[in-house]
Formats: sequence, structure tokens, C-alpha cells
Amino acid sequence: MSKEAVKVVTIGGGSSYTPELIEGFIVRKELLPLKEIWLVDVEEGREKVEIVAALARRMFHKAKMDVKVEVSFDRRKALKNADFVTTQFRVGFMSARIKDERIPLSHGVIGQETNGAGGMMKAFRTIPVILDIVKDIQELCPSAWMINFTNPAGINTEAIFRHTDFRQIIGLCNVPIGMVNGFARILEVDPNQVTLQIQGVNHNFFTTDVFVDGISVMQNLLETYATLDASKMINMRNIAAMPYSQGLLKGLNAIPCPYHNYYINTKEQLDKELEEYREGRVRGEVVLKLEQELFEIYKNPDLDVKPKQLEQRGGAHYSDAACNLITSLYNDRKDIQYVNTLNKGTITNLPYDSVIEAACVITSGGPIPLAIGEMKPQIAGIVQNIKNFERLVIEAGVKGDRNLALAAMAINPLCPSDALNNIVLDELLQAHRKYLPQFFG
Amino acid sequence: MSKEAVKVVTIGGGSSYTPELIEGFIVRKELLPLKEIWLVDVEEGREKVEIVAALARRMFHKAKMDVKVEVSFDRRKALKNADFVTTQFRVGFMSARIKDERIPLSHGVIGQETNGAGGMMKAFRTIPVILDIVKDIQELCPSAWMINFTNPAGINTEAIFRHTDFRQIIGLCNVPIGMVNGFARILEVDPNQVTLQIQGVNHNFFTTDVFVDGISVMQNLLETYATLDASKMINMRNIAAMPYSQGLLKGLNAIPCPYHNYYINTKEQLDKELEEYREGRVRGEVVLKLEQELFEIYKNPDLDVKPKQLEQRGGAHYSDAACNLITSLYNDRKDIQYVNTLNKGTITNLPYDSVIEAACVITSGGPIPLAIGEMKPQIAGIVQNIKNFERLVIEAGVKGDRNLALAAMAINPLCPSDALNNIVLDELLQAHRKYLPQFFG
Amino acid sequence: MSKEAVKVVTIGGGSSYTPELIEGFIVRKELLPLKEIWLVDVEEGREKVEIVAALARRMFHKAKMDVKVEVSFDRRKALKNADFVTTQFRVGFMSARIKDERIPLSHGVIGQETNGAGGMMKAFRTIPVILDIVKDIQELCPSAWMINFTNPAGINTEAIFRHTDFRQIIGLCNVPIGMVNGFARILEVDPNQVTLQIQGVNHNFFTTDVFVDGISVMQNLLETYATLDASKMINMRNIAAMPYSQGLLKGLNAIPCPYHNYYINTKEQLDKELEEYREGRVRGEVVLKLEQELFEIYKNPDLDVKPKQLEQRGGAHYSDAACNLITSLYNDRKDIQYVNTLNKGTITNLPYDSVIEAACVITSGGPIPLAIGEMKPQIAGIVQNIKNFERLVIEAGVKGDRNLALAAMAINPLCPSDALNNIVLDELLQAHRKYLPQFFG
Amino acid sequence: MSKEAVKVVTIGGGSSYTPELIEGFIVRKELLPLKEIWLVDVEEGREKVEIVAALARRMFHKAKMDVKVEVSFDRRKALKNADFVTTQFRVGFMSARIKDERIPLSHGVIGQETNGAGGMMKAFRTIPVILDIVKDIQELCPSAWMINFTNPAGINTEAIFRHTDFRQIIGLCNVPIGMVNGFARILEVDPNQVTLQIQGVNHNFFTTDVFVDGISVMQNLLETYATLDASKMINMRNIAAMPYSQGLLKGLNAIPCPYHNYYINTKEQLDKELEEYREGRVRGEVVLKLEQELFEIYKNPDLDVKPKQLEQRGGAHYSDAACNLITSLYNDRKDIQYVNTLNKGTITNLPYDSVIEAACVITSGGPIPLAIGEMKPQIAGIVQNIKNFERLVIEAGVKGDRNLALAAMAINPLCPSDALNNIVLDELLQAHRKYLPQFFG
Repeated sequence: MSKEAVKVVTIGGGSSYTPELIEGFIVRKELLPLKEIWLVDVEEGREKVEIVAALARRMFHKAKMDVKVEVSFDRRKALKNADFVTTQFRVGFMSARIKDERIPLSHGVIGQETNGAGGMMKAFRTIPVILDIVKDIQELCPSAWMINFTNPAGINTEAIFRHTDFRQIIGLCNVPIGMVNGFARILEVDPNQVTLQIQGVNHNFFTTDVFVDGISVMQNLLETYATLDASKMINMRNIAAMPYSQGLLKGLNAIPCPYHNYYINTKEQLDKELEEYREGRVRGEVVLKLEQELFEIYKNPDLDVKPKQLEQRGGAHYSDAACNLITSLYNDRKDIQYVNTLNKGTITNLPYDSVIEAACVITSGGPIPLAIGEMKPQIAGIVQNIKNFERLVIEAGVKGDRNLALAAMAINPLCPSDALNNIVLDELLQAHRKYLPQFFG
Repeated sequence: MSKEAVKVVTIGGGSSYTPELIEGFIVRKELLPLKEIWLVDVEEGREKVEIVAALARRMFHKAKMDVKVEVSFDRRKALKNADFVTTQFRVGFMSARIKDERIPLSHGVIGQETNGAGGMMKAFRTIPVILDIVKDIQELCPSAWMINFTNPAGINTEAIFRHTDFRQIIGLCNVPIGMVNGFARILEVDPNQVTLQIQGVNHNFFTTDVFVDGISVMQNLLETYATLDASKMINMRNIAAMPYSQGLLKGLNAIPCPYHNYYINTKEQLDKELEEYREGRVRGEVVLKLEQELFEIYKNPDLDVKPKQLEQRGGAHYSDAACNLITSLYNDRKDIQYVNTLNKGTITNLPYDSVIEAACVITSGGPIPLAIGEMKPQIAGIVQNIKNFERLVIEAGVKGDRNLALAAMAINPLCPSDALNNIVLDELLQAHRKYLPQFFG
Repeated sequence: MSKEAVKVVTIGGGSSYTPELIEGFIVRKELLPLKEIWLVDVEEGREKVEIVAALARRMFHKAKMDVKVEVSFDRRKALKNADFVTTQFRVGFMSARIKDERIPLSHGVIGQETNGAGGMMKAFRTIPVILDIVKDIQELCPSAWMINFTNPAGINTEAIFRHTDFRQIIGLCNVPIGMVNGFARILEVDPNQVTLQIQGVNHNFFTTDVFVDGISVMQNLLETYATLDASKMINMRNIAAMPYSQGLLKGLNAIPCPYHNYYINTKEQLDKELEEYREGRVRGEVVLKLEQELFEIYKNPDLDVKPKQLEQRGGAHYSDAACNLITSLYNDRKDIQYVNTLNKGTITNLPYDSVIEAACVITSGGPIPLAIGEMKPQIAGIVQNIKNFERLVIEAGVKGDRNLALAAMAINPLCPSDALNNIVLDELLQAHRKYLPQFFG
Repeated sequence: MSKEAVKVVTIGGGSSYTPELIEGFIVRKELLPLKEIWLVDVEEGREKVEIVAALARRMFHKAKMDVKVEVSFDRRKALKNADFVTTQFRVGFMSARIKDERIPLSHGVIGQETNGAGGMMKAFRTIPVILDIVKDIQELCPSAWMINFTNPAGINTEAIFRHTDFRQIIGLCNVPIGMVNGFARILEVDPNQVTLQIQGVNHNFFTTDVFVDGISVMQNLLETYATLDASKMINMRNIAAMPYSQGLLKGLNAIPCPYHNYYINTKEQLDKELEEYREGRVRGEVVLKLEQELFEIYKNPDLDVKPKQLEQRGGAHYSDAACNLITSLYNDRKDIQYVNTLNKGTITNLPYDSVIEAACVITSGGPIPLAIGEMKPQIAGIVQNIKNFERLVIEAGVKGDRNLALAAMAINPLCPSDALNNIVLDELLQAHRKYLPQFFG
């Protein structure tokens, strides 16, 4: 790794999140000698990436940082000698997401970006692209760290571990850091004092312990949390806030992550989504509008900081988490962050060679998970189920195997009918046909 | 074990299945020197058990067997020096089952005897009784074999393994032998030529291999099976026949057991059940009527064989399986039967100390599972989920812990709403209050 | 598999054991329609194999069996359409074994055919040959069963599982059946009534349970066994009889296999071997003489049965075990035999993909181990150590990696000095240079 | 934990190591507000503990720290409200150690303080005492951390985990930090830059990776290390320096800990020890003399710092490691230290509920191991063997079971004869009779 002048390449650079990433680098300018950042995108995204690049340049300028901001539509050219590669692209843009949501809903089944049928389909579109990116990295910048936050982040990361020999890959999501912040708020302490034990996989983990200054406060926190109003519980912008009952939380002896709403309050989430579906405001449609507004704001030539409105977007802290991770990798800070990496026995009742989302010590040699042990049945029940789903999605997505896709759906509680699964799957495959070479080769 | 004169005690002797058990002993009279059979029941079941006992006496008489048939309402007296104890009782009789079905359905949630909320509640009623029976056996006939076919058979068996040190217990179900017979029919071979590898737990296993004379015929069978009409697929009388798609079966590379319908075709099963609910013919209601008819038939003093009508009842082969098991235990036949016993690594991705349903060699020292290895994700997806549910149900059922019951429901795909789970659970607990000392004690 | 006319190919057909194999087929003539047996050997063994073939022909003639006995020095020609292939060859003949024994002993270190430095070296010579044989089988008779009893039988079998995709391979050894017979003698019952639970690997397993007619008699047997005179304990002809103390046997709660003498009575075995070394009668030297005498006997044109003197040779029952196994594979007898096959969780604290020696049900589809679970520390202590040694020997033997060989020796308790290991290893490699293409290729 | 005024209790306070502990607290005075330290010992150790206490008072005085130094022979009085309890006692004093060494050697078997027969016997003397201490802590200062460095440190720590429900226990040894320092010296970097991955148990681990500033330097280090002269290899004062061959080190792909000499160079270590035995200078005898000299030095009323001569004693850095650990526990430093704690899947092929020695993040809530995964066969070979030995020693030591002790010895490569094991064991038991209530109770 270049110790003097760091080069970052951001694939999907035209994302509306990029200004947050830029701000993240600015905040950490003393810790990371960033020299150049390449925003890579596809030709269809030219307008957006150029808007973002211009804003980035203004932001660095204001921060008095001499950072070269390059826009490129040639990924291989950009990757050469990169130190860090972040991936935040969306194959098929927001309109693909909207299809992932609306097609299942049109059959009365949950349509969601990273869970169930929709999440599977997003994986199918992403896996071929991300495996190609890895090939390029291995050729052009083999010692770079790849930080993936393209969703479904855990599935994509595991696809890389299972189907390449590249190991400098870390999957990243903003949900854990969102929970740290949420607990800090509830406990009225500084987020830096808070560490978590989480057990599970991306978008499907439970917080099984919360520490303040290293000491567990879990039992007290659970008591408090169980009495919170649903709106005060930790949630994501893209998920309808719904309560967990006091009895459930005590029975779990753990705090579900926001996405568990889909599994624990399936009925209510479906009802809510169906309402949004009928009203033409499924999450993708809402976000599409939000993004259009954001890009209008980004265009403003006087804007030279991250605009506040970006917080409204679901992925707050995503890019900040990426900068934090990069900084620790660069400086061997050995602090604790929550990332997607290989299990290797950390959780004994998940597969050894699967990816988990876990508290890790971040060293210059990569993340090392803190040992956990065996998940209790309360936790294992949903998590093992979803990990098996993920493994089938990866295998189906690599091979283009429709039968495995049906098996994946059959074991997923959000896909409650084999007959409907056949219909939903075929409609989704057709809708995304041009992004699915492995199925339509 | 008495080698000369075998004493069998049947707890829940007034069951409508008992004539099948009697027939089972008659068929095997050369292999098992049955001397006496005690039919134990509770006082409320006096009429039924006496009808059954009278029929049993006529049946043995016709078979020229000198077997003493005793009716007893004093379990401890009956157990003294028993060689085999079979348990087939139903706490709360058929009316309790009907509540287990109707209460969840009244909230739009699947109500079923051995799965989901209803199955959990049946376990809650059964566990205290079955643990008491074990205590009595350990005192009064400690070397007896206990053959449990009280449902949920797997949960009850695991409760005994986890909460007593009694090890002479085998859980038994008729689903595997039903699948053997079904495959033999499809393959047009004798059932004795067919053995299975099954992976999973009671009412939740997949047939992962089928052997004829020891040679796997799985791939051919799957091809055939995937094209069968739903009505030709293997099913149970108590489950609506519904097809699995060809794609799914090939994706699974295994054949689901009939109860998987609840998990794979959840939507359709719920719709069907709701229709039955509205029309007052949930399965318990149907069976109640069937049983009343059966007992009318049993009363006939001229009847001295098992009446054909018993086959209509869901549990065909249940008692036959029990007699077969007893005969192999008695004679150390070392044949392969499918029973519920401790896992101990047989399936590496299920807990070591949990009960599985598996192909076992039946020796006089008990069943020994044939090694299996790791379940593939297709299989593990549902099975691990349900095993965790079972473990929570056992713990909740032993402790009388409402919170754990909610956690169990939350991870069960048939209970799709924490809010409804709270309501359904409380109504069920109240409805069965008198059978739930651990919750209301 | 041909159901009418079975063809057996025996590689190393000139072995002095072959007459036992022939007798095994004669005894089972009603169960196995043997049509032809091919005795394959190398040119240097021509004289011996022809003597043996002539005797075999006389034996079949006397038994009134119409079996063609062919001698061949062309393995590929012989293998065509074989139903069963047995392997009992010795690369380098008895003189190689003598070197495996004498070279370590010359440095004061145990020299033994299947353990320690000598066992490793025998594996190094055998692995390349046996992997070649498998290749030929896969091409010429892919549905044949391969029964390997070339030592070290467990290591060779695992080498095939790890380095080929051939799965119709079973490793076989006479030690378990020797223990069955020994226990039957001590218990004064028929060997057919006796089954064992064994835990471990070839030449390194413990009998952890003994059943008569399915019922454990272990505790009583242990009491008796612990008081036996060493000469009455179960042993092999090739191992000096030495007692285990009563305290040890009770502490183990298991009965070691004869080869455990090397690990538990290392000092005494070494002293004994050093004496034999000095007197020119290490086991290989003794056996060489025995074999010469045997072949003189075999030559006798009037001999038409297996001569009694063969029993003196160490491997009694070896070939009989092979015939028994073949018969059960052929007839799907589903009886219990003790063979080397993949672990797959049978013993949870041995590697999933390693070979164990275990009680298996023998079906036409192959052996299926009876589940065992976790070895206790008493058992695991030596067995895990030796399994790791075996894995390193296999990897070293496939790659020709001297460093791995040193690592293997370092963890083996019979190789007590890294400095000596370097010397012993190099002398052995040089001595067997012509049989070690992977090291000198 | 008192945040203002820390109370430390040191059991075995009269140890010659105590001045190092005192110095450790002095060096860290800004980080740890030590208020009082109680040196607890038995009456027979009165003279030594008073000498040490006087020196400690002079040292604190010189360091201008206001720390109360109390001597007590009443453990329970001392423990009241302790924040940290360190244990460094030796049941039976140095003369017991000398017996542990000389008795096995008198039979030609390795006699060593923490390995083989001697290590087992030290565990037998220590376990009853340490379990009593834990009982007192649970009653008198239940939130205190117990730092055990009484040998065998790993066995004693696991005895506490297995036989009490106390969890605030950490086992500590100076070998890992000795290796960190040694590697830093070889690599010419600051020890603070070096972290290790170690795999194994106390006195029996391998360094499987070495990181400088988080980046692995293992392959280069191995190349260098393999060519070092034996005297430059990392070693302990109490172990004869002996080389590992280049081939072995490369084959292991890991660096053995100094105690592995006993297993890998058994023959040479034994020869060396026998020479020392004959000359009356086994390690205990040497240390006894060293200690007498040290106490003469300690007595000097002008001495107010840790004397340099203490470094000659084998346990250099032991107490420093303890202070470092206490400081991180107190301040939630979340740095990486090497301690003995529960495995819980950290190493997947060691028992879940066993103690390992591993790199851990030290938080105020205790140490959390960094995940490791599966040990390779090279590492597992010795480590699994010794862990099984340890488990048997613990069980034998708690129950006073001579048979289990024999089983433990039988699986330990340093005890090469069951016959001798019986003799050595009985002599050791008799020699230490008064410290072995569990055997002679």
C-alpha cells in the first residue's frame, strides 16, 4: 500500500452517496493522505457522476485538500495501482429496484431490495459484475483492499469468497453503526464508548450484547428498550417502524436488527408495502424522487459541503463507515468495527466458509472477528435459515440455475407459495433479462 | 427384559388407534411372546378404553393368543415390571386439538396440530405429563423401552432427553414408513426392498436418498416424482394435497415430507384451512366425527378384527410401526427403521444433543443412526429453523416461560406477526389453562 | 455389477495370503457366483504368483467350483470389467519392509511396518501406485468395488478419498475382526453374536463398547479383561504381547487395539525391537522366512486346501474379511462389518473428510457407518494425534515433500528427536529411492 | 470495580517474582490508581513474604506512591473487596517441584514442572487449593478479576471454568510475551509493533502468524528463523536450548513454543535432564539456590528497586504481563494480549468448553479471543493430544481418580510406559500425600 499518496477508486461513483464519502475523507484528512479519487461509472450514468465529481472537487477545495478527482467510464484504467476500491453501484439503476419491489407485490408477496425475492434478484444482477471487478483488481491492483457496499452486501461478499481466491475484500453496511448510534442515544453515552456483540449476517443479525466502556449493559438496556415506543426503536429510513413486544424482546434476550421486521412482523410489513404499491410509492419510487432532488441540489455551483438533505436517504453513515474502515486499514488502528468477513468458526453454528457480519478488530492485514461461539436457538432460528437462503442464492446466481432459485425461495419465509414463487421468479428474470447473462447466456 | 412373557403398557389405551396396535402384535405373534397388555387411560376416557379393551380381547381370542388385556386408570400400578411402554395419549382429548386449530385460525394464522402455534401448545400440554411418566418408568420398570408416539413426537422425545437421564426412549412417527410405502408404490417394488436416507426432524424431514436393494435410485425417482400429479405425491390424510413444482424438486434434490406443505405452500394451506374453519370442519372436527363412528363400530360384539375404516384416520401405520420397532428391540434384528433419537453428530449441522428423525439400525440395545453428515442448504434451511423452534418450545414448555414462547413463535414462519403471536398465545394459554400447570401453577 | 458371473481381480495376487482368499470364496460359494479371479503381480513376483495360482486352481477343483484362475502381469488387461478389485501388494517386497524396520532401529528408534517412520515410508511407496490403480479402475471398470488391504490401509484409503473422485473404495483390516473373535472367546459366546463400537483409525482404534446380541457387556468385560494375563489379551502375531495395567484399562474405559502397544508401552516395544534388530530377526526377517516355508508348502501338487501353517502369518482373517465384505456388497446383506470409510461426522472430533475405521452397515451401495459422536479425551488423545500424522503423511506422500514428512514425524510419539528424524528420513528415502518418484522424480 | 482506589491481593505473595509485580505497578502508576496490595501466604512462608513486603514498601516509597502493603496469612480477610486477585503460589514450595522432577527421572522418564508426570502432579496439588480460592472470591469479592499465573496455568484455569461458575478468571503466562519480544529482536522492530497469532494451549502453542503493524511477516521470518543458531532461537531459561531443523520449521509453517522441545526433541531433553538429575541440579534445585540468593538480595534495606538478578529466574516478564493485563482490564484499553481463556469456537478443532492460550482483545468486560479457525494437522497433532491430557488431568485431579491419571499418562508422549507410569504415579502420590486430599481424603 502506498504510504504517501493514497488512491481510491469508487465504482458506482455517480451514486448520490458519494458526497458523504468525500466528507468522510475530509474529516479524516490528518489520518489518511488521500491523493486521488476515481469515480467510475457506466455511460448511462454520465450526467450524475459528473455532477457528483464537480461537487467533490468543490468540497476538497473548500477543505484545502489537494485531491485529484477523476471521472472514468473505463474501470480497468481507473483501477491501476489503486490502494482502495469501494463498490457502491446498482446494476440497472433505480428502475431495476422498483421492479424488484413491484413485481413480487403484484402477486401479494413482499418486494424488498435486499430480502426475499427482490433481494435474490438484486444478487443475481450484481454477482456477475462484482466477480468481474474482482478479476480486474487481481490483475491491476492486487494488493488493494476492496470495500463492498453494494447490496446485498453479505451475499456479494460471500460470492467473492466462494468463487474467487481474492481475500482483500470486506463487505460493509451501515446498519450496525446505526445501532451503535441508536443505543448510545438511548443510553445517553458517546457512541465511541459503545461496542456491540452482533450475531448473524448482513441485514439479519441480532445485537446480543451491548458494552459501554467494555462493560455489558445488556440487561438494563433490554428492560428500557422493551418499553420504548416503536418510533423510538432503532430503525432504517426504508423500513416501516413497527414494535417488537416486550415479551418477545425478553424471550430473544437480544435486539433484532431493523430488517428483522420483515421476518417477525411479516404480515404488517406486507400490508404496508401493498398499500405503498397501490399508491405508487414503493421505496424505490420514493428514493428515485429523493435522488432527483438531491442531484438538483448537488448541481448548485455554490454548494461545497455535503448537503443535509442526504441524511433523508436510507443509507446514512454508509460512506462514513467506509472511510472509517479505510482509515483503520491504512493505520493499523486495531479498533473494533462491524464488517462482513469470513466466519471461520467465529459463530460455530454457521458454516465455516460463509460470510458473517461481526465485530472485528481492524488491522492493516484486514479484519479479525472477535470470537463469539454458538448462537442460541432464538438467534439461530432466523439467521441459519437466511444463511442457507444466501448460499443457494449465490450458487443459483453464479450458475444461472432457476431450480436452485426456487429452492432458495422455498426456504425463505417471505416467499410463502411455491406456485407464486414460480410466477414471481419468471417475471423477475424476464424483467431483468439483459442483466442476467448467467440465466440467458 | 423378560424373554418369556412380554408385558406391554399402552398409555392412552383408549385411543382409536389401539386396534391397529393389537393387530400388529397378532401379526407378529411368532416373533414376540406377548403375555399381557395394559391399556391405561384417564377416568374421563373410561368408556372409550373399555370399548377398545373388549375389542382387543376379541381380536386376541380370534387369533388364538393367550394375552391378558387389562384396563387401568392407575398408571403406576400398570407400569410395574413392564417391558415396553407405548404412549399415545392426547392431553385434553380431541376438543383441545380443535382449540389448537381454531384459535390461531380465528386470527388468520395457520392452526395445526403439530406445527406452528397449535403444535407448540400441544407440546406445552404434553411435556409435564410425559416427564411424569418417565419418572414413573424409572422407578417402576427402569429397563423398559418407552416408545412415544404422542405428538409432537420429536419435541416430546427431545424433552425427555434434555430434562431426564432416561435413555430407553424412542420417538416414533408413521410419516417415514408412509414415504417408504409411497416410493415402493411409485417404483413398483416391494416396500421391504426400499430404504431411505432422511434428513431432519419429526414432521420436518426431507428424503435425500432412496435405495432399492441398497442401490440409490434417487435421480430417476426425482425425475418421475417431479412429474406426478399432486394427488399422486406422498401425503397424509390430514394435509391438503398440494403439488411441489418440478423446478423446486430438482432444486431441492430431495423430496419434502408431507408436512413441508405448511412451509412451502404456506399461503395455500392457510387459505384451505380458513375455508375449513369457516365451515366448521377443521381437521380436529373431522377426526372427532370419524372417531365417534369408529367407536360405534368397535362396540359391535361381533367385530374381532381391526375394522377397515380405521385406515381413514390420519395415523395409518402408526401402531404397526410401533409393533415392528418393539419386535426388533426384542429380537435384536438389526434392521433399518426410522425413529426419533439423539443426533450425536449424525447430522453435523444440527445440535449434537437434539433429537432427529433418522434411519437407524434397531438393536436390542436401542437404535443406532446411520451416519449422514452435513445437510445441504436446501435441506438445512427449513430444518435448522424448525429445530431451533422446537428447542425453544421445549424450554418454554418446561419452564412455563411466555417470553420464550413468543421467541419460538417469532422464528416460526407459520406465525407471521409478533402482535398476533401475543394475542394467539394468550388465548391458547387461557383455553388450555387447566392442562398447563407450568404456566399457571 | 454382474449379477450372474462375478469377476475378481487381486492385485498382488502372488501374496502368501491368497490361498485364504480362495478359501473365503469357496466357503461362500452359495452366496457369490464367482466366475473368474485374476491374480495380478509384477514380473519379479512371477514365480510366487504362479505357485499360488496353481494352488488356487487345485482348491477350486476340489471344491467343485468352475472358476477361471488367470495370472497376469498386465494390470489394465486384468481390470477390464472387474466386479471387485482387491489390493494386497507390497511395493518393494519383503526386503523393503525389512529396511523400514532396520533403518529406524539402527538409530534407536522404533521401526515398524505401519506405524512411525516405517509406516510413513511404506505409505510413500504405496501411494503413487495405488493412485495409479484407481485411475485404471475408473477407466476400465468404473463400477467395480475396490477393497484395499495394502498397508497402511487407512492412510492409503484416505489418500484415494482426498486425491481422486473415486468413491467405490473400502479399506479393510483384520484387526477388528480379530478383536471380535477374541472377545467372543473371552465371553464364551459365538462371534456372530458379538458386535463392537470402535473409535479411531486403522491400527489405532479403541473398542469402546462390546455388545452380545445387541446388549452392551462392556463393564463386565472390562473387569475381566483387566485381570487377564498379557498373553490372553487380544494381540497380533507381529506385536510383542504386553499387558495394560488394570488401572489404565479402567481409566480408558475402553480396550486398546493391539497396535496401541507401540504408543502405550513404547519403551518396552522399543527394547524388544532393538533385541530383535541385534539378533537379525526383526518382524520382516521372520516373515520372510515364514513365507519361504509357505511357498514350499504351496508348491506341493497334492495340496488342494489352505494349509494350516498360513495361520502363523500375522494377517490371519484378512482375506476372509475381504470375502465377507464382498459377499455383503454383492447381496446387500446390511450386516455390520468394520471397515475404513469416510468419517462425515460419524466421529465428531475427527475431520469430516478423513477416513476412519468403524462399524458399518454393508449395503450394495457401500458401507454406511453407525453414528458414534464425540470421542472422550482418553480415546481422542492418541487417535487425533495419529490422524494428524496420517494427513501429513498423505500430503507429503502425494507431493514428495520432505519438510511435511519431518512435520509428520515431529508429531508422532514414536519419533522422539527432530535431529534423528532428519537422519532416519534421509536414509529411508535413499534406501527406497527407486520406489519414490514423487521425491526423486 | 472501584474506580478510585484499586485493591490488589496476591496469593503466594512471598514469591520471588513479587518485586517484578511491584515494579509493574510502579511503571503504570499513571494508568492504575493502586491503593493497597495484600501479600497473602501460608505460615511456612512467613519469612519470605515479610522480606518481600519490606522491599515492596521501599520500592513504592522510592516511586512516591502511597500504596499500603499488607502481609496476611488469612486469605479470606485479605480478599474482602479486592479488585484484582493474582495467584502465584506453589503448593509444597520448591521442594515439591524437585520431587516432581526427580521421581520420574529416577525411572528414566522426563521430570518437568508443567509437562508430563510432573506437570500432572503439580496440577493435582494445585487444583483443590485454587478451587477453594475461587469459592472465597465468589463470596468476598465477586466482581474481582482473578489473574492466575500458578502453573500449570492453562490446566488450573480450565479447572475453574469446568468446576465452578466463576467467569472473572484469566490465566496468564509469560511465554507468549517472551516470543513477541524475541521476534521483535530478530525482526529489529519495537515489540509494540508485533502481534502474534498463536494456536494452542498454555506451554503448548505454536506461533502461526507474526504481524508487524498488522501486516504478516511470517514467511520471511520463518526463512530467517530456520537458519538461526539454536542459541538464538526463542527459549526459556528453564529449557535446554535445542534447535529445530530447517526442514521441520518449514514443514510446520509455524514456530513452536519453547516447551515443544519436550515433545519434538524428547530424547535429547531426557538425556540432558538425566545428566542434571545425576549431578543434583535439576531445574528445581537450580531455582531453589537462585531464590535463596535473591532473598538475600531482597533483604538488603538499601535496595528499593527490582534487582537485576531476578531476570535470571525463569519467569521473566510474568508479573509484568500481569500488570499489563490488569491495566487493560481497568481502563478498557482493548489492546491485544495473550491469555488463557475459554475457547468457544475460536479454534474449531479444540473442545468448545476448553481453555486455550490466544491473542485476545482485553476489555473491561474481560478478554475476547480473536477468531482463528481450524488448526492444520501440523499444529493439531501435538496440541489436541495435550489438550486431551489436560482434560484427563483436571478430571483426575478433581475426583482424585488414579485410573484417570494413568489414562492421562498413557496418552502423553512423555510417559512412554504403562508399567513405569504405574510406578512413577504411585511414588509421586505418596511423596505429595499431604497435599492431595482428593486422593487420600
